Amino acid sequence: MPEPSVTTRLRLSGLCFLLQILTILLFAAFVRFSPESSPKLCSQPLNCSWRNQDSGFQHHRFRDVHLQALLGFGFLVAFLSRYGPGSVAISILVVAFAIQWAVLLQGFLHQFRNGKIHMGVQSMVRADFCAAATLISTGAVVGRVNPAQMLLLALLGVTLFTLNEHILLGLLGVSDSGGSVTVHTFGAYFGLMVSRILPQLHMDQREEQQDTGHQPDVFAVVGTICLWIFWPSFTSTTTAQGSAEPWAVLNTYFSLAASTMATFILSPILCEESTPRMAQIQDAAVAAVAVMGMAGEMLVTPFGALIAGFLAGLIPPLGFRFLTPVLCSRLKIQDTCGVHNVHGLPGMLGAFLGTLLAALATADAYGGRLELVFPLVARGSRTGTAQALHQLSALPLTLLLATLGGCLTGAVLRIKGLRSAPAPRYPDNTEVKLVDEEGCEHRVSRKGRGTSTLV
Amino acid sequence: MPEPSVTTRLRLSGLCFLLQILTILLFAAFVRFSPESSPKLCSQPLNCSWRNQDSGFQHHRFRDVHLQALLGFGFLVAFLSRYGPGSVAISILVVAFAIQWAVLLQGFLHQFRNGKIHMGVQSMVRADFCAAATLISTGAVVGRVNPAQMLLLALLGVTLFTLNEHILLGLLGVSDSGGSVTVHTFGAYFGLMVSRILPQLHMDQREEQQDTGHQPDVFAVVGTICLWIFWPSFTSTTTAQGSAEPWAVLNTYFSLAASTMATFILSPILCEESTPRMAQIQDAAVAAVAVMGMAGEMLVTPFGALIAGFLAGLIPPLGFRFLTPVLCSRLKIQDTCGVHNVHGLPGMLGAFLGTLLAALATADAYGGRLELVFPLVARGSRTGTAQALHQLSALPLTLLLATLGGCLTGAVLRIKGLRSAPAPRYPDNTEVKLVDEEGCEHRVSRKGRGTSTLV
Amino acid sequence: MPEPSVTTRLRLSGLCFLLQILTILLFAAFVRFSPESSPKLCSQPLNCSWRNQDSGFQHHRFRDVHLQALLGFGFLVAFLSRYGPGSVAISILVVAFAIQWAVLLQGFLHQFRNGKIHMGVQSMVRADFCAAATLISTGAVVGRVNPAQMLLLALLGVTLFTLNEHILLGLLGVSDSGGSVTVHTFGAYFGLMVSRILPQLHMDQREEQQDTGHQPDVFAVVGTICLWIFWPSFTSTTTAQGSAEPWAVLNTYFSLAASTMATFILSPILCEESTPRMAQIQDAAVAAVAVMGMAGEMLVTPFGALIAGFLAGLIPPLGFRFLTPVLCSRLKIQDTCGVHNVHGLPGMLGAFLGTLLAALATADAYGGRLELVFPLVARGSRTGTAQALHQLSALPLTLLLATLGGCLTGAVLRIKGLRSAPAPRYPDNTEVKLVDEEGCEHRVSRKGRGTSTLV
Repeated sequence: MPEPSVTTRLRLSGLCFLLQILTILLFAAFVRFSPESSPKLCSQPLNCSWRNQDSGFQHHRFRDVHLQALLGFGFLVAFLSRYGPGSVAISILVVAFAIQWAVLLQGFLHQFRNGKIHMGVQSMVRADFCAAATLISTGAVVGRVNPAQMLLLALLGVTLFTLNEHILLGLLGVSDSGGSVTVHTFGAYFGLMVSRILPQLHMDQREEQQDTGHQPDVFAVVGTICLWIFWPSFTSTTTAQGSAEPWAVLNTYFSLAASTMATFILSPILCEESTPRMAQIQDAAVAAVAVMGMAGEMLVTPFGALIAGFLAGLIPPLGFRFLTPVLCSRLKIQDTCGVHNVHGLPGMLGAFLGTLLAALATADAYGGRLELVFPLVARGSRTGTAQALHQLSALPLTLLLATLGGCLTGAVLRIKGLRSAPAPRYPDNTEVKLVDEEGCEHRVSRKGRGTSTLV
Repeated sequence: MPEPSVTTRLRLSGLCFLLQILTILLFAAFVRFSPESSPKLCSQPLNCSWRNQDSGFQHHRFRDVHLQALLGFGFLVAFLSRYGPGSVAISILVVAFAIQWAVLLQGFLHQFRNGKIHMGVQSMVRADFCAAATLISTGAVVGRVNPAQMLLLALLGVTLFTLNEHILLGLLGVSDSGGSVTVHTFGAYFGLMVSRILPQLHMDQREEQQDTGHQPDVFAVVGTICLWIFWPSFTSTTTAQGSAEPWAVLNTYFSLAASTMATFILSPILCEESTPRMAQIQDAAVAAVAVMGMAGEMLVTPFGALIAGFLAGLIPPLGFRFLTPVLCSRLKIQDTCGVHNVHGLPGMLGAFLGTLLAALATADAYGGRLELVFPLVARGSRTGTAQALHQLSALPLTLLLATLGGCLTGAVLRIKGLRSAPAPRYPDNTEVKLVDEEGCEHRVSRKGRGTSTLV
Repeated sequence: MPEPSVTTRLRLSGLCFLLQILTILLFAAFVRFSPESSPKLCSQPLNCSWRNQDSGFQHHRFRDVHLQALLGFGFLVAFLSRYGPGSVAISILVVAFAIQWAVLLQGFLHQFRNGKIHMGVQSMVRADFCAAATLISTGAVVGRVNPAQMLLLALLGVTLFTLNEHILLGLLGVSDSGGSVTVHTFGAYFGLMVSRILPQLHMDQREEQQDTGHQPDVFAVVGTICLWIFWPSFTSTTTAQGSAEPWAVLNTYFSLAASTMATFILSPILCEESTPRMAQIQDAAVAAVAVMGMAGEMLVTPFGALIAGFLAGLIPPLGFRFLTPVLCSRLKIQDTCGVHNVHGLPGMLGAFLGTLLAALATADAYGGRLELVFPLVARGSRTGTAQALHQLSALPLTLLLATLGGCLTGAVLRIKGLRSAPAPRYPDNTEVKLVDEEGCEHRVSRKGRGTSTLV
């Protein structure tokens, strides 16, 4: 492979420099730490909900900073590891920029007072969510775009994510504390649309990784473990505080357990092997947390979490077997890391589950938790059915915004000056799959790839 | 190697399906989240101890959910990594099922009221302990049983573990918050007895791993680090709450440090190398936490933890050198991962230490902690000597139950329909040790193994 | 390579045994757990600051034990992974001994009352800091000293670190909660001076690792992730408690993000590749936390953290390119892991930043936080300028002590009986760089190294 040209290299360098300087200037002009002892600053229900507790909880907020920060990045790790060693460096770049950009944009929408953004720990947690959605999007195109394009994708993706989140959580009052719709569904379909617009070159990294010895298994093991450790707690960091939390944690645990069982049930039937690969188990874990994003704090019985997790665990194996080839050949959508199967579909399942649970929500079943999970219903300003309709409406709105935004972003990334060979380093002996108009068929060794294939 | 037959593959699939459906039905019928604000539901001292605090601690319970969930699975990781990449998938399956099953069985014993199990976070933590014991048992037979057999072993192992734990903690009032006896000793001897009953095929995975490049070292490093990070805190999650905790954490830390030093002392003497391998250091770490399971919250002086950890660190190197060959040749007990050396013997040492400390316990030395560590002694319903006798009696009871249960389980696993080639995938160039009636001698390459050796 | 001789092996064994027995005896004679409910025991401002809170925080202290212990070791991991798989075993030995020794020495200085050291959780956290500084020092000489020499280096390094910390924090009242000066600068320059005195043999492990396949990338990925997860929280565990904490966490996060961007800016310019290697990203992360050690709790605006992190992220690439060769050829200082670039210089930058911020500190900007960050200024016993001078004086004092102590330690390590081949195991096909008087030029394969090169 020819070394990336000087222009290519300096373009990434220059873009990073410009964006970082821009961020520093905007931070200098607008962002201040919020004086956390004065709870009068918040106005939106979104970022106020965690303040409206009795003062006994106020002290705890400061204690939990450690933990939230710990969890916030911990769960990003699970994504990092999904894309293999070759793309970790780019993923970390995306996270580093997305966090800064998300703090700015979310701050302008939610914490802008007297010409300043007053940010706190909650801002960082929400920025982590946003970075997660961006990483999901990159999973659809990894290996096909260069780092500079990735940065632009993060720039536009974060912007659209923040807009979508604001509409759903802020304006419509949808409950989606774990991000079934806002993070997983949005991230997946935004990435898929970008992938549709970009020129086609399918580098089936998933398969490629599993061919090159044990290395990727290590990443899959670490990623799976991080999901089990960090996600159940993370799901609940943004839930309404108080006694609502433990249920979200436990529900997510049960969902993880059941989805693992589901993978062991389907894998021997669909594949030739009796035990699933670690990557498949990791996919099941991701699907299990995606489905619990919205419903985790709403489920009042553990068996519901078991059933939901079980169904979610069935999606990725079936999707990879039957759906991904169709997407690729019919719709010309290439999905490098299978984000449609592990994020998109389980996220939609989670949205339907959340709608169902909102419709069934009664003060009897929830008790004092109703105020925490569905504050508008508890205050009487909305019925359970109305809340369910709002929950359901989140899905088409998100899909619309993700699709339109993805088309726009894909078009931007196709601008001539940006196109070049993708930059992640692979071992020299790996093969990439080249895809022509007919489908995802033939492989060429990487050395012979040349640059002409990259349109 | 011939691919596993269709029957074999579908057997695992069907067994997973049956067990998961059974679990979902039982959860639907019996398990509900406990309304955590009402502390009147508990009856056993086992699960009540953490509620009998002043109400100032009540709020903290909800805060700690994050952390306990985080730690609960974190420490399982240490086990996962001990068995190498080939068996991680099976280990995660075992954990996923054992957690569900343990919540059910422990719930029936401890939280069954009005026809429902009222589970909370503490249930999940105890289920994690149970999954840990099951993983220890699987360590003795890994590589010799197929995944379906592993699931049955988990089914029976969890049942017996719960029974044993109920007798010791619930009925006898033994203090064993970190599981020296209930987790480590029970898990090790249960697994060893199953191994004794199963047909002999020794696949010395430990040695095999260390031959295949750096890969296993990565797992050993990650596992050791997880033990250092997660276990000290985990030991204390189930201790009596309040000021008793910090001591357990610090004692476990000192125990880990001293056992590491012990390994560096013995390794140059017993082996040809000047520095121990990472797997040996990890064994020392496991032994150090096993010995602190019971005594961690009882030790009132740090040097006691140093001495106990030092002694525990001496056990694995000596055991692997002198004891494992004897077990294998004389008693026909094959111990794939050496659970006897790293869990069984250190756990017994911990039980003796706990007995000694209980006998020496006085109100002077413990102060207010006496109520937390030995509630029955503090209330005057039992003398220190009586408590010590109860602590000591835990050991023979556990050994008896583990031995009988192990024989029974081994017999079940030998049922004709279950036997087949073990399923974990190994790299094709690894060798397995075949063992005939004479001992653990000769190696064959894996390709030539065939299926006839598996009786 | 010849096996280490029996003498060499037994020397390590004997030294470990002697040190461990000595530690146990000292612990038995002096160390007791502090009765944590009685806050009258402390006398130094260093270890008292966290007790002088309103009693509402007292309960939290016990809760936070879990977390501090979790974080305490978690951040050590980041260092472990920097030195590659070959040296992890030795690093864990260093940590195991350094923690015990630091608890003893720091206890004698800070918690010695009535002939006993009353240790608590805070002692363990401070011991973790000390172990971190020792690991930094070992990074300058790893691969050139044998394990027995490493132990002696830890013995002397911990002693000097404790002395330095006592002078700075205890006597001068310097604020350095995250250890910019006490941990990073001291550790780096102490290690560099030891390296200067030791006979020259440069084994460029950094480069060597990156040549041997993907393995080291795994370690770099894990290390980078641990830094992101654990360090922001860890920085604040030793800060003054209360509302001061969140700022330190957030500042460290922003610093990490900006330093990552800086690496992506410089790397394409300095190197031939368009994306930096994971090891470079990890270096940037370490530099970012080193610079935030002192200033993390002082910065009142997030953009300051972005600028500081950005500058810190520029240091390692520039240092490795322009400074390390000069150090090696002119000053004859070999720096195996580049601790000068990633710890030494960023730590000094952090000290200058801290000085600047102390000079600018006003009650207006800090509000109630002034008491927590600069207690002496808040109480009026010192002006902001005086505090700034004290902060600044920390740097030359530390450099002086590190230099003198490093010379002394290097001289001790050169004692005849100690010298022998270094013990970490490498794969047989690795190459080491041999360095003669002219510089760090020529490589020889490891098999042909012999022992004569080790002077």
